[in-house]
Amino acid sequence: MINYDQFLSNTAKGMKRSEIRELLKLTRKPGIISFAGGLPAPDLFPIDDIKEMCKIVLEKEGKTALQYGPTEGDNRLREELAKMMNKDGVNISSDHILIVTSSQQGLDLVGKIFVDPGDVIMISRPTYVGAIQAFHSYGAKMMGIELDQEGTQTILLEAEIVKLAAKGSKPKFIYEIPDFQNPSGITMSLKRRKELIRIAEKYDLIIVEDSPYRQLRFEGKSEPSLIGMNSERILSLYTFSKILLPGFRLGWMAGPSELIQKAVTAKQSVDLCSSPFNQSILYEYLSRGLLEKQIIVIGKAYKEKRDFMLDKMTQYMPKLPGLKWTQPQGGLFLWVTLPESMDAGEMFIAAVEKQVAYVVGSAFYPDSGGSNCFRMNFSYSSMAEIEEGVKRLAQVIDTWKGRRETSIITP
Amino acid sequence: MINYDQFLSNTAKGMKRSEIRELLKLTRKPGIISFAGGLPAPDLFPIDDIKEMCKIVLEKEGKTALQYGPTEGDNRLREELAKMMNKDGVNISSDHILIVTSSQQGLDLVGKIFVDPGDVIMISRPTYVGAIQAFHSYGAKMMGIELDQEGTQTILLEAEIVKLAAKGSKPKFIYEIPDFQNPSGITMSLKRRKELIRIAEKYDLIIVEDSPYRQLRFEGKSEPSLIGMNSERILSLYTFSKILLPGFRLGWMAGPSELIQKAVTAKQSVDLCSSPFNQSILYEYLSRGLLEKQIIVIGKAYKEKRDFMLDKMTQYMPKLPGLKWTQPQGGLFLWVTLPESMDAGEMFIAAVEKQVAYVVGSAFYPDSGGSNCFRMNFSYSSMAEIEEGVKRLAQVIDTWKGRRETSIITP
Repeated sequence: MINYDQFLSNTAKGMKRSEIRELLKLTRKPGIISFAGGLPAPDLFPIDDIKEMCKIVLEKEGKTALQYGPTEGDNRLREELAKMMNKDGVNISSDHILIVTSSQQGLDLVGKIFVDPGDVIMISRPTYVGAIQAFHSYGAKMMGIELDQEGTQTILLEAEIVKLAAKGSKPKFIYEIPDFQNPSGITMSLKRRKELIRIAEKYDLIIVEDSPYRQLRFEGKSEPSLIGMNSERILSLYTFSKILLPGFRLGWMAGPSELIQKAVTAKQSVDLCSSPFNQSILYEYLSRGLLEKQIIVIGKAYKEKRDFMLDKMTQYMPKLPGLKWTQPQGGLFLWVTLPESMDAGEMFIAAVEKQVAYVVGSAFYPDSGGSNCFRMNFSYSSMAEIEEGVKRLAQVIDTWKGRRETSIITP
Repeated sequence: MINYDQFLSNTAKGMKRSEIRELLKLTRKPGIISFAGGLPAPDLFPIDDIKEMCKIVLEKEGKTALQYGPTEGDNRLREELAKMMNKDGVNISSDHILIVTSSQQGLDLVGKIFVDPGDVIMISRPTYVGAIQAFHSYGAKMMGIELDQEGTQTILLEAEIVKLAAKGSKPKFIYEIPDFQNPSGITMSLKRRKELIRIAEKYDLIIVEDSPYRQLRFEGKSEPSLIGMNSERILSLYTFSKILLPGFRLGWMAGPSELIQKAVTAKQSVDLCSSPFNQSILYEYLSRGLLEKQIIVIGKAYKEKRDFMLDKMTQYMPKLPGLKWTQPQGGLFLWVTLPESMDAGEMFIAAVEKQVAYVVGSAFYPDSGGSNCFRMNFSYSSMAEIEEGVKRLAQVIDTWKGRRETSIITP
């Protein structure tokens, strides 16, 4: 028997498999209605268009598309993305864009270029579990700032930064998901965005803006993106996974060229380049204006699903003091808070037995917290599944509400 | 002006952009014949087959192929790869295989799961520049062991390991490219392979076997792969980039399940999963036996190119004492050694002026060394380009042979 542990890095020793992804496996059993994953609706994938673009790419430029490509990404695609961002109020050129192998790679590169073990970074409580994992793997010390209905509480954020400054320290960056935050669904108000930028300027900080859902607004006015408000201090991450499809594993990073250059160098040692084939297909798709149309299609469909889920929540959920959920204006998720005495982690097994699944809130906290919360996705399931799933979940909550003490005694 | 340096990790501060990839940019100018990149011949890409497989995948399973997939990779593809490895004498099941986003990602994951800053790893001198970059980014201290015609000199390797042991230390792993090594083209003899395994067992070590070219043998008998000789101590990396096409960015890692599981967890934070779309296309391609046929086609074509390049080298190169090159039995590269007084780095500018390019030998050394060597690729260029390129290079060497001192004086 070989003792493999002796060879492992501290990172590997400290790694835990993602709770979400482990739970996702449970939820793949037939019959389960899963509100767990952040999966887009596969029925909306534009399969015929993609088939057409594959054909075009392979006939027109197969030899280039199937070869290695530049680390920065396909220049034509970068230009299309710069144009798209220009329309969103961001004054940026393609030189400021790096194509990444999914925005999860963007998060890994952020960890690689910024974080040494023990470095402090600021995050929200709760926040995206994949970001926690990526930053954790570089040994980041994550300081969590509570969210409220307007987003990260910038007063608390500033207070922590002042405390760090008193110790001669400062965070390597502030990690934010301003639009339809994962997992809470909350969008940061304009006032808070301005405050955040003011803080970054005052204390000479940079912000990593994670923007997977920004284009998925169903109603209300879009606030400016952080990178649109300050192009010098913000590094932004975007992905095609939610607005088009995840199967290509493509996203992009935008920001000051000094930082983009560092990310390019880091990417050379990570995967040389993102798939030139998939990039070519995307370029053809974007250059025909198809993505803009697709985003409208998706937005409409997800709005209906959100409305329907909210409706069914109101209809089926038991009237319990403290039981509440968010009303997001876009994105993919509702965030449900149970009465404080209830534990969403303990209730999870009962939910899976009842054939319905969610993600336990504690997964979105780097330390403790969120144990009476869970995240529900409304983009993936069909209308019939949403109704049936909410009904089952309401029953589980209703049965479970008095059971906490019992479950602790059970072995 | 923002001082971005203050936010950078030690890794980012220490990162140098890959010399190879920077030079590759120079060599993309029109008119230049480049022997620099390790690029496969695009004329051999099976474009029509890929087009057909794309169509099949999108029609049959578009909704799954364009969705997220499991981190471990497509099970069907993993099974095909296990079968392929079984035929190569490796007793392995699909549980021991992880699909990676190119074998460069495999190297990055190896760095992530094994290396803490300052950890010693053993490499060959010279070795693959992308491995140096990946391990460097995790702060590895690389100890280089000289190669000879039989591969890494295991006597020297053992001596270094004994020295480390005397200090109470040992390497985290030994990195090897046993078949048609990059950059040297050298294949490790069976005797040395056995020695290497004996050393790993005696000193309780693991070996990372990088195998991008193994299937590209043009002649002679294949030696067993290291993982075929010991499945407990070897983690092997393979890629589709050289045997099929690089544009999908797919490869695989095979090894003990304890280590594969660690790599899976690390991959969750790095890119969640490799492109399910590209994996589905590859599965369809492999399951029809097309890859085996394609490897035969590629092997034949590259053998002709190697023969032709060796021929032209003999024909055109000046007769200089000390000027020599390897005669690889497979792979993609020749390794040229100039007389000791000559510097391939200084000569590179003259070569590019003469419209021909190679990779300077020093790129393949983590410290110093290789300054009078360079690597030539024979897979990418056409026959006509090979002849003309070798002719140009011979002229450059001939003109440059007495010039070293002059060039040093030049500012």
